[in-house]
Amino acid sequence: MIGAGRVAGHLSRTLNTAGHRIVQVISRTPQSARSLAEVFGCSWSVNVEEGIAEADLIIFSVRDDALQTLIRRLHPGDALVVHTGGSIPMDIFKGQARRYGVFYPLQTFSKERVPDFRKIPMCIEANTAEDEQLLLDLARQISEVVIKADSRQRLTLHLAAIMVNNFVNHLYVLAEQILEKEHLSFDLLKPIIEETAAKAFDPGPRKSQTGPAARNDKIVIEKHLDLLSWSPDIQKIYKVLTDSIRMEINK
Amino acid sequence: MIGAGRVAGHLSRTLNTAGHRIVQVISRTPQSARSLAEVFGCSWSVNVEEGIAEADLIIFSVRDDALQTLIRRLHPGDALVVHTGGSIPMDIFKGQARRYGVFYPLQTFSKERVPDFRKIPMCIEANTAEDEQLLLDLARQISEVVIKADSRQRLTLHLAAIMVNNFVNHLYVLAEQILEKEHLSFDLLKPIIEETAAKAFDPGPRKSQTGPAARNDKIVIEKHLDLLSWSPDIQKIYKVLTDSIRMEINK
Repeated sequence: MIGAGRVAGHLSRTLNTAGHRIVQVISRTPQSARSLAEVFGCSWSVNVEEGIAEADLIIFSVRDDALQTLIRRLHPGDALVVHTGGSIPMDIFKGQARRYGVFYPLQTFSKERVPDFRKIPMCIEANTAEDEQLLLDLARQISEVVIKADSRQRLTLHLAAIMVNNFVNHLYVLAEQILEKEHLSFDLLKPIIEETAAKAFDPGPRKSQTGPAARNDKIVIEKHLDLLSWSPDIQKIYKVLTDSIRMEINK
Repeated sequence: MIGAGRVAGHLSRTLNTAGHRIVQVISRTPQSARSLAEVFGCSWSVNVEEGIAEADLIIFSVRDDALQTLIRRLHPGDALVVHTGGSIPMDIFKGQARRYGVFYPLQTFSKERVPDFRKIPMCIEANTAEDEQLLLDLARQISEVVIKADSRQRLTLHLAAIMVNNFVNHLYVLAEQILEKEHLSFDLLKPIIEETAAKAFDPGPRKSQTGPAARNDKIVIEKHLDLLSWSPDIQKIYKVLTDSIRMEINK
């Protein structure tokens, strides 16, 4: 396992629980490498060149901007090399390894929360049919939802995930700020946040769109914009999303 | 109960289950009025002027734009009159009724889904301390989360609810469109949507912000914008939210 961050930590633990031996952890700092290696009682290093020959599978789970440099320094030999990123094409390995692919879990990971991999879609790609099958089989050992996805499909999934995770979370951050100004607790939004997520799958997001933008209620929209006069930034987001909902409804 | 829509239907059923008699349903069409009245075996009408004297509490649960006109036509006498809207000030009743207030459930309602009122925040306001207490007591019979909120606080809650419901749902709609273009199922996003909602309360939205905008990863942002070249509308939303996340992180 190259990397010791959130994805690396959860994925290596899950693979280990499924019966696979983690033979080495390589990470940028001795602290992070040692800390994760101790979970498996395996060796660790801060140096990719020192990667030991014993590994059948080498997993890069590092920051996108570090990946290219690290790959160039690795000597994978006959091992299969994969990365876990959503937005990096598989071809980043071309010329650097003989056997390569992608092993992308479509989920947001936190240090504190233990993910249930069985429900996490695993998106697989490889440069040969044989290794694709090998990765599909491996993914099925930890997840019930395994799909083949080429680099463009994976980038599309990553983009959609950014929309429903990063962007949605940012709307939560802004809603919390709006409530704080009136000394109201963000916890009051818990039921509507949960219900909104539930309705996205039954009856689906298109059928679930309600509110002032969907019914073009200009009076309420003006009241909200007026209440937001303290934040031109949130006003702008409010306007852009309201306009987009109106366009969608009138399609 | 004046109104027979989603809020009116769920709220009157819940009050009835809590032991209160619904004496009459008044709605715009005979069909909708009769259909809801049949649930309670009570009388119904399409005419607010015909409101019967028996009611202790008259609840307006109608479209915002219909409320003003309907209130003017009502003769409430000694009954307490409330509305269930998030964005309408309590003072809309001023001069039209002696006793008035607001009974606002902070939730999104659908025809198909039965809401659990015990978890729904009920936001209460009244023009006298006595009626405020009466509405607080009534709300506590159906919900565990009852708060006093003046009209400005209620509008603030309504605005925050629009952000985390209408706007979040619209991001789900756009994500579904993005996936459809690559023949990918929206169901693949279920785990990340659920996890995003869960993380909003543990560890909270500010601590949960990750992704290319938060780490200012311009390469990934450019890839996403490039993939969105078919939709200037979604590109604009992507840019506005990305800029706002960057600003928030650098605060």
